[in-house]
Amino acid sequence: MSRLTADIAHDASKVMLDDISPEARRVARHCILDLLAVTLAAWKDPLAQILLDEAKDEQSRPVSTILGSGYRTSASQAALVNGTTSHALDYDDASLALNGHPSAAILPAVLAEAEAIGASGEAVLTAFVAGYEAACRIGSLMHPDHYRRGFHNTATIGALGAAVACSRLLGSDAATVRRALGIAGTLAAGLKHSFGTMSKPLHAGWANHTGLMAARYARRGLTSREDMLDAEYGFARTMSRDHHLNRAYARPNGGWHILNNLFKYHACCYNIHAPIDAAREIMARSGIVADAIKQVTIQVSPVLDTVCNVQDPQSGLEIKFSLRHAVAMALCGVDTADIASFSDANALRPDLVAMRDRVAVEWIEAEDTFARVIIENDDGARLEATADSSIPSANLDQQEAKLTTKFAALVNPILGVGRANQVIATISEFESLEDVNVLLLGCVSD
Amino acid sequence: MSRLTADIAHDASKVMLDDISPEARRVARHCILDLLAVTLAAWKDPLAQILLDEAKDEQSRPVSTILGSGYRTSASQAALVNGTTSHALDYDDASLALNGHPSAAILPAVLAEAEAIGASGEAVLTAFVAGYEAACRIGSLMHPDHYRRGFHNTATIGALGAAVACSRLLGSDAATVRRALGIAGTLAAGLKHSFGTMSKPLHAGWANHTGLMAARYARRGLTSREDMLDAEYGFARTMSRDHHLNRAYARPNGGWHILNNLFKYHACCYNIHAPIDAAREIMARSGIVADAIKQVTIQVSPVLDTVCNVQDPQSGLEIKFSLRHAVAMALCGVDTADIASFSDANALRPDLVAMRDRVAVEWIEAEDTFARVIIENDDGARLEATADSSIPSANLDQQEAKLTTKFAALVNPILGVGRANQVIATISEFESLEDVNVLLLGCVSD
Repeated sequence: MSRLTADIAHDASKVMLDDISPEARRVARHCILDLLAVTLAAWKDPLAQILLDEAKDEQSRPVSTILGSGYRTSASQAALVNGTTSHALDYDDASLALNGHPSAAILPAVLAEAEAIGASGEAVLTAFVAGYEAACRIGSLMHPDHYRRGFHNTATIGALGAAVACSRLLGSDAATVRRALGIAGTLAAGLKHSFGTMSKPLHAGWANHTGLMAARYARRGLTSREDMLDAEYGFARTMSRDHHLNRAYARPNGGWHILNNLFKYHACCYNIHAPIDAAREIMARSGIVADAIKQVTIQVSPVLDTVCNVQDPQSGLEIKFSLRHAVAMALCGVDTADIASFSDANALRPDLVAMRDRVAVEWIEAEDTFARVIIENDDGARLEATADSSIPSANLDQQEAKLTTKFAALVNPILGVGRANQVIATISEFESLEDVNVLLLGCVSD
Repeated sequence: MSRLTADIAHDASKVMLDDISPEARRVARHCILDLLAVTLAAWKDPLAQILLDEAKDEQSRPVSTILGSGYRTSASQAALVNGTTSHALDYDDASLALNGHPSAAILPAVLAEAEAIGASGEAVLTAFVAGYEAACRIGSLMHPDHYRRGFHNTATIGALGAAVACSRLLGSDAATVRRALGIAGTLAAGLKHSFGTMSKPLHAGWANHTGLMAARYARRGLTSREDMLDAEYGFARTMSRDHHLNRAYARPNGGWHILNNLFKYHACCYNIHAPIDAAREIMARSGIVADAIKQVTIQVSPVLDTVCNVQDPQSGLEIKFSLRHAVAMALCGVDTADIASFSDANALRPDLVAMRDRVAVEWIEAEDTFARVIIENDDGARLEATADSSIPSANLDQQEAKLTTKFAALVNPILGVGRANQVIATISEFESLEDVNVLLLGCVSD
């Protein structure tokens, strides 16, 4: 019998802010910045409004803020609504170790509980990193079979990550975290079959909700199995044939999974990020103009054919999953970081369609996060660049600058420039916040 | 592609009280009577108190009653707390088609939502039967592989049953019920690994909570897959290799699954019910006294060896899973319907231990709900009886009398005789209730 449940619980209950490397803490702040951006940008989304209406119907004690609306409710409701909203645009960060979206699954629960109990920035950052690392270890344990057989890691494993994070925030001891994992493990759910519907972002909200409740129940003495990740009929083995203990114990690059967190800078499918980056690099390097482009070739893994290869997209949603169109937009100077760029109008804009017709997709043997783009000019010149979206940023200054730009683009229209800048400033000194309420109460639309 | 999701949704959205046979309606009333009994009897259980404390912490709008305590909260909270409490004693009814506990998984959600919206008895009964039938059809579809691979049907399929029932109560059309099944299917969870901990009854509460929310979300327009039971990566196929469409469409005995509902009359493992019934039959028929018994043989399936064959139990919990001791109690005239009989004191009572020492268990080839008991007397006489706990009562008058006795034993100490009798009377005319509030507001401990 392995003892992964016990070890994860032990690590989570013991970790202190000082144990976490400065780089890992900085990336954790980036996760907070990015999560608030994508959540605030979506707060008027129809899905977010459905959940907000439900929360309003319950009229629970107002201790945690629903981002954007500013409506205050119970921590469990805020975790559910904010968690769902954070994934509504599918513009939130990702982890290859989890094979899903750790911040969306964990952070809203931590922030909601922190606001309810008046926790400090230090406590939140520590709890979030504890949950993030746990989720990535469990993801590594169960990848790829869990996902392959139909489960959505963000939803299922995300609930366990949220349970660990909220347990750390509440100061639970190792035995209590084990039980929280037991409760979250037996309540965790979410199927990939729901992709393409509102139920996919709902998964993230439900993971936050389930994890937060599991942490609370365990604190109150509710019993569950304490070997949920190890037992023959526990969560890990019932829902996955994979059980890679060595991977769950392996030391990630830099010592922290969170250092390998991947942010989205284009408001479309993650598999289109590398082609866009390669295309933009050529444009920036060569200084050519769109009109001079004769022919474009995108070389990527054939895996992408079923993911994001809509050949002749007709809508804003479809161009989010069209290699040809998204790259055409990048070549024509359209801002692919702006969610408004992925509009029905841009799907039909004549110059973009004309450019798209010059783009061909070619399958090569490669990881599905790799792309090579080749541009042939009117004058016969051949320009080429590659990109790999599986590689986290090595330059955290650059990452912060890009995320700050993304934040401004998404949040300035919601909060106004002044308060948006205030949020950025608050997050930059997150560990020194005495009470995170100051941050969350500021995340309310005009 | 099958269309079971669509057919279940269609049937549920169309069924009216008049479509349901009088016998099926009567059994549905029995389910309500029995559910209230086992829920009220457990309301001071530590698990129930944990969930009550959480509900109190949320201070939600008081529209639905937590049984026993009388605390009023949101429908989703009441469904969660009452659903969990109803399964806390493991004394609630069961269905072999679902392979689980349909009333505990479905009825608390229906009652909580009904109280919140002021629904009639007719609406509640119709909704409950719609959900019950749906859950049994889905159980038939996925049995036995779903359970065998580690999932707890009460929890997983129960959530879909609750979603269907609440959808019917809210008057959802077929398309909306399909989406409610899609949402519940992707949020449904629960592992058998949790058996023996408080997380097992929590499963029932979570199923009610999830199903109720799925029905509400679907009403508000939240989208999900509409082929959750049919698609290759939907709920049914991801979580079970079995996919017995013929069974899901088969007409159950009497036309309604609910007619085959099985009630517990002994406060112990269901697999001990048949041995107790057989032993009691011999005692009643022959009129012998315990002292005259020389030797007892219980013949049952060897499957029970790992379920309820504690040889020398030392505690109240252990005698709930001891064939020898429970039958010894029945032979000595102890009331096995009384939850107080399964006490630590009775585990050690000398006359019971002495009788237990005269009882032997013998394995025979049989269904695990069948038992033969053979008693040899001091005078050499040999008495024998058989019982099968898989057979629902053919005599509904007798069933009602037994359930009324059980109700009185469990509920009189909680509500007092006067109000307990009032609840029984109210349920006997359930279909004519204009508003179920009158029933639920009366289920409050002195």
